[in-house]
Amino acid sequence: MENIGILGLGTVGTGVVELLESNGDLIAQKLGRQINVKKILVRDLSRARTPLARGKITARAEDILEDEEIKIVVELMGGEEPALSFIMRALENKKHVVTANKEVISKYGGQLLEMAGRVGVNLLFEASVGGGIPIIRPMKQCLAANNIYKISAILNGTTNYILTQMEETNKDFEEALREAQIHGYAESDPSADIKGLDAARKLAILSSIAFNTRVTPDKIYTQGIDGIELSDIKYARELGYTIKLVATGRRLGRSVELLVSPVMLRYDHPLSSVRDVFNAVLLEGDAVGRVMFYGRGAGKMPTASAVIADIMDAVRNDSGGRMYCTCYNELDVLDRGAAVSRFYIRLKAQDRPGVLAEISGALGKNNISLSMVIQKDVKNRVAEIVLVTYEVPLKDLERALDEIKEYDQVVEIANVIRVEEGVI
Amino acid sequence: MENIGILGLGTVGTGVVELLESNGDLIAQKLGRQINVKKILVRDLSRARTPLARGKITARAEDILEDEEIKIVVELMGGEEPALSFIMRALENKKHVVTANKEVISKYGGQLLEMAGRVGVNLLFEASVGGGIPIIRPMKQCLAANNIYKISAILNGTTNYILTQMEETNKDFEEALREAQIHGYAESDPSADIKGLDAARKLAILSSIAFNTRVTPDKIYTQGIDGIELSDIKYARELGYTIKLVATGRRLGRSVELLVSPVMLRYDHPLSSVRDVFNAVLLEGDAVGRVMFYGRGAGKMPTASAVIADIMDAVRNDSGGRMYCTCYNELDVLDRGAAVSRFYIRLKAQDRPGVLAEISGALGKNNISLSMVIQKDVKNRVAEIVLVTYEVPLKDLERALDEIKEYDQVVEIANVIRVEEGVI
Repeated sequence: MENIGILGLGTVGTGVVELLESNGDLIAQKLGRQINVKKILVRDLSRARTPLARGKITARAEDILEDEEIKIVVELMGGEEPALSFIMRALENKKHVVTANKEVISKYGGQLLEMAGRVGVNLLFEASVGGGIPIIRPMKQCLAANNIYKISAILNGTTNYILTQMEETNKDFEEALREAQIHGYAESDPSADIKGLDAARKLAILSSIAFNTRVTPDKIYTQGIDGIELSDIKYARELGYTIKLVATGRRLGRSVELLVSPVMLRYDHPLSSVRDVFNAVLLEGDAVGRVMFYGRGAGKMPTASAVIADIMDAVRNDSGGRMYCTCYNELDVLDRGAAVSRFYIRLKAQDRPGVLAEISGALGKNNISLSMVIQKDVKNRVAEIVLVTYEVPLKDLERALDEIKEYDQVVEIANVIRVEEGVI
Repeated sequence: MENIGILGLGTVGTGVVELLESNGDLIAQKLGRQINVKKILVRDLSRARTPLARGKITARAEDILEDEEIKIVVELMGGEEPALSFIMRALENKKHVVTANKEVISKYGGQLLEMAGRVGVNLLFEASVGGGIPIIRPMKQCLAANNIYKISAILNGTTNYILTQMEETNKDFEEALREAQIHGYAESDPSADIKGLDAARKLAILSSIAFNTRVTPDKIYTQGIDGIELSDIKYARELGYTIKLVATGRRLGRSVELLVSPVMLRYDHPLSSVRDVFNAVLLEGDAVGRVMFYGRGAGKMPTASAVIADIMDAVRNDSGGRMYCTCYNELDVLDRGAAVSRFYIRLKAQDRPGVLAEISGALGKNNISLSMVIQKDVKNRVAEIVLVTYEVPLKDLERALDEIKEYDQVVEIANVIRVEEGVI
């Protein structure tokens, strides 16, 4: 029998307790022994949500962190503190740690892995990215022989749900957000999701593993979906694209390019068909080529599935087979302006002869050529103009747009969105 | 330094040697030590394809199997013998074994894992299914807390390439097969691919892991794609489907249903967009829901990527963390006639009044109702009739078709294909 202690009994914690119960036999048969939840830390003793937890509840972290019979600590509190301190104390006390905490891992993963290695215990965090989708372990193990040079991923279910709703039911952003909140896909304060921070944390974790260099979320240029209007979605459709919040990491020599932002994906791009709350991670490695992992990126039971897989691994790897930090590179993070891409630009201008000529002239002067142009929807003599450029460094585009903004006829540059083509 | 011996220097063997060379630093940094290819067994000493192998070539298996300095044996010969005997001798000599051999693993995986467990060494075979796509290890580790109840997979790149060619360029089967042979995607004797045997071997391996019961290829009802005509592809398109060779495993109580056959997939089915030589495995588990793994299912470097990942794991798990057979269930394999599905039927009949009424009458008598009917292409007073049924057990359908076949007006039942809808 293997005793574990769980810190936190929210949605995921409850899912873990329930799944250990419902699939306990299967787990024991695969592992050769039972997993026993000995103690569960809750903030509020009256909030023990599941009857299974009865008699195991404690409000004192010491009951878990200092219990010598508990060899595995499962941290499911979320947030930075006290989760970080608890994880460190568990490691100091030579306990394996399993966590779903993307905030802590994305910021302190390097130090914590180093600690775990020094002490000789497992630190596992499969559930911190992609919910139940196997991604951390496949990258660390199955793709270990590859130089991975690109990650493109949909890592946030909330924003993907909102964008799917906007695209498929013509809701505007606010309405789609409310819909997500009603379904429990978005929190009452949805900013970490819609501003892209959640995706940036997950990209930091994946990039650190993929490129073997430590990436923290503050290094990632992050733009959310709150600037996406329904008209952008409609133009995208007209042009053959769908808009997704994409997390991209690219290895370029001794540098990495890291971006979280809305992207227009052509309909044959493997990520373009990822709908609703689903997540997907597309990796490109020098030996394996393109591989993709797809599934539910969040939710009670999918996340519990990943947490218990880690617990089982910690039991199995008690005596060996552990993996620690592999960030042996120190790569620079490229300035976001250097990012080369195609771009979609939506702007509003007075409907006067020669406007389009003037705008495309300004772009041409900066070596930016256009692959598509749409001009329509004239209202009150203001026309909406949509342009799609060929590949250009963002800084060149921004320079051109600064010029264009100053033109008398230009009312507003409403949106600029990266464009990615499909399979090359 | 870790010494390995490689049995076989064909395409995959050459890939492994090359990748160990080109990414050797990366591998050593992640693993903390070098992997050294000490000896390579070849059948024909003059066929050492890569200069890297020089000085390491031997024609005597003993040089590897009996060398005490070699702790890991990598079997890449393919075929049943002598591969099986060599693997057994390596295990007896307490060497870890890594293999890409789907033939041996699908037939003898149970015994070999049992042997490896008794001796206390690793037996790893990630490369035997899905080329470079991580699938075996994610199932065994990352999804270990799940009852997996369904596998649907495209496991053979050759047939998927042929079907993609037929669909996208209107080639007939023979022409598409020749095209596959020209590109090196199909062998000169393509029967193991196009008859579905290759997919059945891989399904046997995946099902054994997913359902925790030993499945061998002979238990799997297997139908290839050689009966698919261009007209079936065209009708499928007209009806909103695409035809793929799908390997399906389904847990139904104490039984499993196992099928490899062409299937019409609706365009919103996650497998429907898998084109060319790509493979994909869609799993459904009780906690994780739907997850999908996608990538190149074959080829020199993708397969080498999986082989080296296994070698790295064998090094890491030298002292613990190993996994053995988890087939603790003994589930029955359902008779194929019990498989319930929708079906597409294409038949030819004399173009006389009442033919369709008579046919649908015979179906109705057997409780089979129709969701779609197309009748056209009358040539020489023979009409082609296409029917799509609602869900029905195959044996009921076959009984009805036996009746229909006897009708004077019915010239031929040209094809019967399973139909699967998309996301439910």
